[in-house]
Amino acid sequence: MLTKNQIKLIHSLRQKKFRSLHQMFVVEGVKVVHEFLNSNYDLVDVFSTDTSYSKYNSNFTEVNLKELAKISSFSNPNQVLAIFKIPLPSLVNWSGLVLALDAINDPGNLGTIIRLCDWFGIDDLVCSETTVDCYNSKVVQSSMGSHTRVNITYLDLETNLVDSITCYGAFMDGVSIYEQELSKTGIIVLGNEANGISKEIESLMKVRLSIPRSGSLKRTESLNVANAAAIILSEFKRNTTEK
Amino acid sequence: MLTKNQIKLIHSLRQKKFRSLHQMFVVEGVKVVHEFLNSNYDLVDVFSTDTSYSKYNSNFTEVNLKELAKISSFSNPNQVLAIFKIPLPSLVNWSGLVLALDAINDPGNLGTIIRLCDWFGIDDLVCSETTVDCYNSKVVQSSMGSHTRVNITYLDLETNLVDSITCYGAFMDGVSIYEQELSKTGIIVLGNEANGISKEIESLMKVRLSIPRSGSLKRTESLNVANAAAIILSEFKRNTTEK
Repeated sequence: MLTKNQIKLIHSLRQKKFRSLHQMFVVEGVKVVHEFLNSNYDLVDVFSTDTSYSKYNSNFTEVNLKELAKISSFSNPNQVLAIFKIPLPSLVNWSGLVLALDAINDPGNLGTIIRLCDWFGIDDLVCSETTVDCYNSKVVQSSMGSHTRVNITYLDLETNLVDSITCYGAFMDGVSIYEQELSKTGIIVLGNEANGISKEIESLMKVRLSIPRSGSLKRTESLNVANAAAIILSEFKRNTTEK
Repeated sequence: MLTKNQIKLIHSLRQKKFRSLHQMFVVEGVKVVHEFLNSNYDLVDVFSTDTSYSKYNSNFTEVNLKELAKISSFSNPNQVLAIFKIPLPSLVNWSGLVLALDAINDPGNLGTIIRLCDWFGIDDLVCSETTVDCYNSKVVQSSMGSHTRVNITYLDLETNLVDSITCYGAFMDGVSIYEQELSKTGIIVLGNEANGISKEIESLMKVRLSIPRSGSLKRTESLNVANAAAIILSEFKRNTTEK
């Protein structure tokens, strides 16, 4: 049985200010909730039409379909909705290969990039404070649980991109990523969907990388940032997986 | 001044059966409409708050913001909406590098893949008849005008994937794409988001490719198909752009 206060809390968590206030976020659907339940994330509450979640004892609330629809942001709610605590980020391991995002706006892009980090074994994703919140529900759903395996840290890029570490920036006019030697460590920086890497941090880039476009000039102007991330991470990783 | 029949027609074009019946589709927003106006696509009508489109003479209808909102599928309509004729596809050039999609469901994925074909100079995209319609408005908007530079053909893959051409299929368990020799011509096949390449055409694949996952087994199970397309097309093209 769902209380009015629970409904109110869940609805409020759709907004970043209430996620920050309560230090909680919402996850939906069997597959993604399963990933978070099997991770280090702390469960606050789980609401489901399926009583097998009753093993979570006092954290479990059985709901009917109508109640689930009231709290879900899906048009077709999928059995379960859970609230988890936002964890404290671990310290960034700057001596590994780190991906940094400068003002990524689109939640779907951020979710996809988190999933790519997970696939390619990038343990640390650092985001400028102007990047969309990674606990936004669209980010959580599109990352499909990869949050649980990638350490995501929000910080001021300008003061944190250290001079001693090679920063690789993605630009339209950089050196071809197919021709540039890529190291196993360093920081890869991707910029905003419309404006690219901001002026403030552009000067910190040691290497300007680009993905060559094929064929004529009458082609599309740009790649989607998540696709650019896929290609760049693949290029960095292919060296370590080659025979 | 917008007529009731125009509104009715535009709304009907949100459904595939009416797009097929009228052989027309809708494009919205300044940037994407611009791409189609500057292509071989035949304009049927353009509706805009901006009278500079009056150069299209009898095809132009001036509308106010309220009227534009009535016909737009955007929450914030962007100045212009146009109707174009669906062109007849050109003959597929099977002797080039062709991308084939087997039952891609998500309009955003298809739009992104069309944009990737444009970027990487893939002139022919062939889609199984079970793939989402490329004139679906979400596909058109997410491809950002790349339709105008990629020949998209719907056909039965099983009967059209010719034995004499090397078919490269993307699988979870294939040979690493970093280790496989890739030719400049052939057919690259990507399967459905949830189920991969269908049983019927799996046997036609000469090479089973996969994108290696880094690190431990406790990683995400799969890549988004548009990201997989980005990485695979980049690998096929890097050879032709390398020094």
